[in-house]
Formats: sequence, structure tokens, C-alpha cells
Amino acid sequence: MSAPNEVGPAVVDLLGVLAYAELTAFDRLAEDARLAPTLDGRAALARMAAAEIAHHQRLDERLRELGVAPADAMAPFVAPLDAFHDSTRAGTWLEGLVKAYVGDGLATDFYREVAAFLPEPDRGLVLEVLADTGHADFAVREVRAAIAEDRRVGGRLALWARRLVGEAMTQSQAVIAERDELADLLISGTGDLNGIAELLGRLTTAHSARMEALGLNG
Amino acid sequence: MSAPNEVGPAVVDLLGVLAYAELTAFDRLAEDARLAPTLDGRAALARMAAAEIAHHQRLDERLRELGVAPADAMAPFVAPLDAFHDSTRAGTWLEGLVKAYVGDGLATDFYREVAAFLPEPDRGLVLEVLADTGHADFAVREVRAAIAEDRRVGGRLALWARRLVGEAMTQSQAVIAERDELADLLISGTGDLNGIAELLGRLTTAHSARMEALGLNG
Repeated sequence: MSAPNEVGPAVVDLLGVLAYAELTAFDRLAEDARLAPTLDGRAALARMAAAEIAHHQRLDERLRELGVAPADAMAPFVAPLDAFHDSTRAGTWLEGLVKAYVGDGLATDFYREVAAFLPEPDRGLVLEVLADTGHADFAVREVRAAIAEDRRVGGRLALWARRLVGEAMTQSQAVIAERDELADLLISGTGDLNGIAELLGRLTTAHSARMEALGLNG
Repeated sequence: MSAPNEVGPAVVDLLGVLAYAELTAFDRLAEDARLAPTLDGRAALARMAAAEIAHHQRLDERLRELGVAPADAMAPFVAPLDAFHDSTRAGTWLEGLVKAYVGDGLATDFYREVAAFLPEPDRGLVLEVLADTGHADFAVREVRAAIAEDRRVGGRLALWARRLVGEAMTQSQAVIAERDELADLLISGTGDLNGIAELLGRLTTAHSARMEALGLNG
């Protein structure tokens, strides 16, 4: 277990952004659950939301252990994450599912890449809270069924997914521009510009695979 | 483990109403979390919401085990529970906390009384999902602190609590009038009118103790 002073500000930043990301993911999934056409669907999304809170709690505990007030660690990330969610509020049940699967998938991949540069125990903790909560299958099944019924749905959702990615890029650039330590961690971790290009390549490949899984080839 | 045909419709009704109660409690706590004045408060309410969903899942699994579709078991209780929540939507953070503590406390006591009349394993399951999620202390602390700061807050919250109880009575009477088997279970379980009076007495005593704990002597 590291003492507070052995942990750099980039680690606190990463734990803080993740903690707030889990809290907003909870909010949004809870809100989208109400768009569910069935009680079973509503329960499924509520369960995804509950999983995010369990993760939030782990990060909250770790921050306290490091002597950092969780609210302070989360504070710098409230505005950009709220801006992302406000600009990508799901209007329909299917948009909510695509956001949960495609948006969270991309975010998870990114955080996982950064986690690889962290010392233990925080690397392990971050990878653990990012572990798939096993609900992806549900989103894939529902979206594919809807597209099978009406092909135009696919076109609309593909556009929606593209908008999600665009907004996510905008907000993550804003975060990295603000948090020097986080940017340094990213650059020193990847090694050089070539390393960053490779990282972006991996994120893009995984994103395309998720779009494919949903039947949104784009 | 009981086979489906050994379980009466009153048991399915009780599991169904509880399952839907947990789902709506999740919704409402998630919504009220957004009223929190601090990130810590928001996380605390989100954790309470997540606990409700874990309980919902246990009931959902038990219903499936009994060969009953959870959505079917919940269906008769959607309208009265939604009516209760719609008519008692918290307008402030403190109203939300009072609702979580006083309203859920009363409901929990009532369900616990009914559970005593159930055969195992359902009695144990219901008592387990009703177990205090340990968040009551949080509500008590926040509400008492707010009243200490401004005594008028206490008067307003006492009125709010009285309204919650009134609405809860209205909706539970509607449910019992509709579900004969549930009414029969209640009457045969308590024995007679005297038994029902004693049950109501116990609920009232526990409710008064919660009001006292919040500093809402009424």
C-alpha cells in the first residue's frame, strides 16, 4: 500500500476522473432506465447503474486512503463530464443503449490504456473497476433486434454513435489540456508520438468492433 | 426450495410488490441524488439506490425460480406505486432524505410484518432484502444538521412526512382492496381485527421513533 506522498498527482487525477465518470454514468443509466419499453429492460439498465456505483465506492475508498477528499479529486472533471453528458442526452431507449455500450466502451478502453502506466496497487484497482460488468450483451441484443425490425433505425443510431465519439474527443482534449500531470503521464507512458498514434489505433480498432457488434457498420 | 405449485398467489404478490417497490425506490433515489448539495451526498444516495437494485435482483431470481415472469408479478403494483411516488415527488434534497428514511422505513416495517406469515424460504428472502442497508444514519445526520441550522425547516419537513404517510396509506389500501389473496394473508396471519390493530400499533410506534430520530417530533 502506497503512502499518500508516494503517489503522484496524475494518479489522483486518474482516480478522480474515474470516480466522477462512474457517478455520472450511474445518473445517466438511471435516467435512461426510465425510457425502457419493458420492466425487464428497466431493471437491466438499473443493474448496470448499480454496478457503476460499486466501482465508484472502490475509488472513493482508495482516495480516502491516500488522504485525498474524493470530492476534491473529482472537482476538476465535473464540468467536462457534465458537458459531455448534457450534449449527448439520449432521447430514446436505443440511443441510451448505444451510449452505454459504445460510449462507455471507448472510455473504458482509454482509461485502461492509461492505467497501464500507473504503479500498483492503483493499476490493479483501476483495471478492476473497468472490468466489464457483463451487461454489454444486453445492449447488443436489444439494438440488433431493433435494427432487424427496421433498417432505418441502424442509420440513425450510426449517426448518433458518431456524435458520441465526436463529443467524447472534444471533452477529453479539454481535460488533457487542463491537467498537465495527466498529459505527462500519457506522453511518458506511451514513449513518444508514435506510441500515442498506436494507442489511438488500438482505441479505434476496438471501437469499430463494437460498432460491428451492434450492426452499425460505419 | 419450494416448487412453484406449493407457493400460493399471496407469496407471488408479495414478491411482486416488493420487486416493483425496489425498482421504483431505485428510480426515486437516483433522481433525488441529483438534488444533493455535495458530491459526497450525491454518492451516498446513489449507493442507497444501488442497494435497492441488489434486492430487486434477488426477488427477480426467486420469481423466475417459481416459474413466474417478474414483469407479470410486478404488473398489478405498477399503478399504485407510481401514483404514490408521483404524488410525493421530493422538491428538495431534505425532502428526498425524509422520504427515503420515513417512507421506506414504514414500508419496510409493513412488508416485514407480512413476511412473518410466509413459509420458508420466502420469509427469509423477504426479511433479507428488507434488511437495513445501513444508510439511515446518513439521512438522520443530514436532516438533524439542517434543522439545527434553521428550526423552520423542521416544521416544513414534519408536514411533508405527514403527507408521505397519508399517501402511503391511500395507496396501500388500494392495493389490499384489489388483491384478495394478500388481504386474506394479512387477516389470517394477524388472526383477527385485534391482531390487525396490534400490527398498526407496532407500525405507528416505529414510525414515531423515526420521526423522533430526525428531530421531527410530531
